[in-house]
Amino acid sequence: MFDLKYHKDYFAGSRDELCAKIQQSVSTKRYQHILGVEQAAVQLAQENNVDVEKASIAGLVHDYAKERSTEEFKRVIKKKHLDPDLLKWNNFIWHGVVGAEIIADELKIDDEEILNAVRRHTVGSAVMTQLDKVVYVADFIEKGRVFPDVDFARTIAFNNLDQAVAFETKHTLQYLLAANKTIYPAAIETYNRWVVAVN
Amino acid sequence: MFDLKYHKDYFAGSRDELCAKIQQSVSTKRYQHILGVEQAAVQLAQENNVDVEKASIAGLVHDYAKERSTEEFKRVIKKKHLDPDLLKWNNFIWHGVVGAEIIADELKIDDEEILNAVRRHTVGSAVMTQLDKVVYVADFIEKGRVFPDVDFARTIAFNNLDQAVAFETKHTLQYLLAANKTIYPAAIETYNRWVVAVN
Repeated sequence: MFDLKYHKDYFAGSRDELCAKIQQSVSTKRYQHILGVEQAAVQLAQENNVDVEKASIAGLVHDYAKERSTEEFKRVIKKKHLDPDLLKWNNFIWHGVVGAEIIADELKIDDEEILNAVRRHTVGSAVMTQLDKVVYVADFIEKGRVFPDVDFARTIAFNNLDQAVAFETKHTLQYLLAANKTIYPAAIETYNRWVVAVN
Repeated sequence: MFDLKYHKDYFAGSRDELCAKIQQSVSTKRYQHILGVEQAAVQLAQENNVDVEKASIAGLVHDYAKERSTEEFKRVIKKKHLDPDLLKWNNFIWHGVVGAEIIADELKIDDEEILNAVRRHTVGSAVMTQLDKVVYVADFIEKGRVFPDVDFARTIAFNNLDQAVAFETKHTLQYLLAANKTIYPAAIETYNRWVVAVN
């Protein structure tokens, strides 16, 4: 574990206090994944001149709302007047874009860069900041992930962040297609921007 | 070639007269493709209780505007007040959805079922009529098409039209992804409806 001190007031407390709140919101298994994402995000932030404290917080909170109920997500979509089209989707989509609202409310985090990184961590976006990319890629390559190309993905991630975004986006879409699984249309905007434009 | 007589006034003239107009609008090579699509569309229409005259006309006109210039398509998008988002795209997308407007104006075809089949022949749609499916699939399997899975695609097409829509949609997306080519977001709506829901 790291011993990262928070100084910038993105969160009103220490890293340990933030971790304690997250641990209350998710299962043990997901908490281990979250710590892995934070660690990878901090490393990628250091490599790419991104604010390490933001990377730590965004990594820690990215799945904060993942285990909330369908009812809770739908309630938040309506209460916050989010795009009603969201109601047609599911936890996979909601825990990022709706999760950011839950994080803002419960953890009192209002930094829009951190919240956007949470919003965009699931399917990316045509517009992504360096912090967004760090969290998106960290979620894919954290040390607990096991899939055939993961070592290759890790190598790319620490070599070229944009190429890692492209690799992850294409890899995920190919997996979804092969398995006949639903693709969220915004994932195609990520693909058109970061895969087509890069290659 | 067939000798199909038109009786229903979807087009104000004979099939030969329609063919003559199409021949003036496209290259010889594309005209051969168009005749192949018409033939496949008529056969698929017969198998699926779809109006054969509509299938013939939709097959013949589906690529009528394919060789028009970027300038012409942009002019039509503005003049007809089509979705301005279309301006960001290209001939591949325009020749269906904008092409339908050019067909309506120049060939005086106003049957919305025929025009919708033209609009939807390129990337499909979440909502597709039987005629839409017939033209979408005919374009994929017509006798001039050559690609590794084309015989398999033809077998599916004459066995189950919905499965053929699913096969074509998935096959095309897999090709585009592997080649890092742009994917039009509406193609994902087709995939989510006809591939994910079917499998």
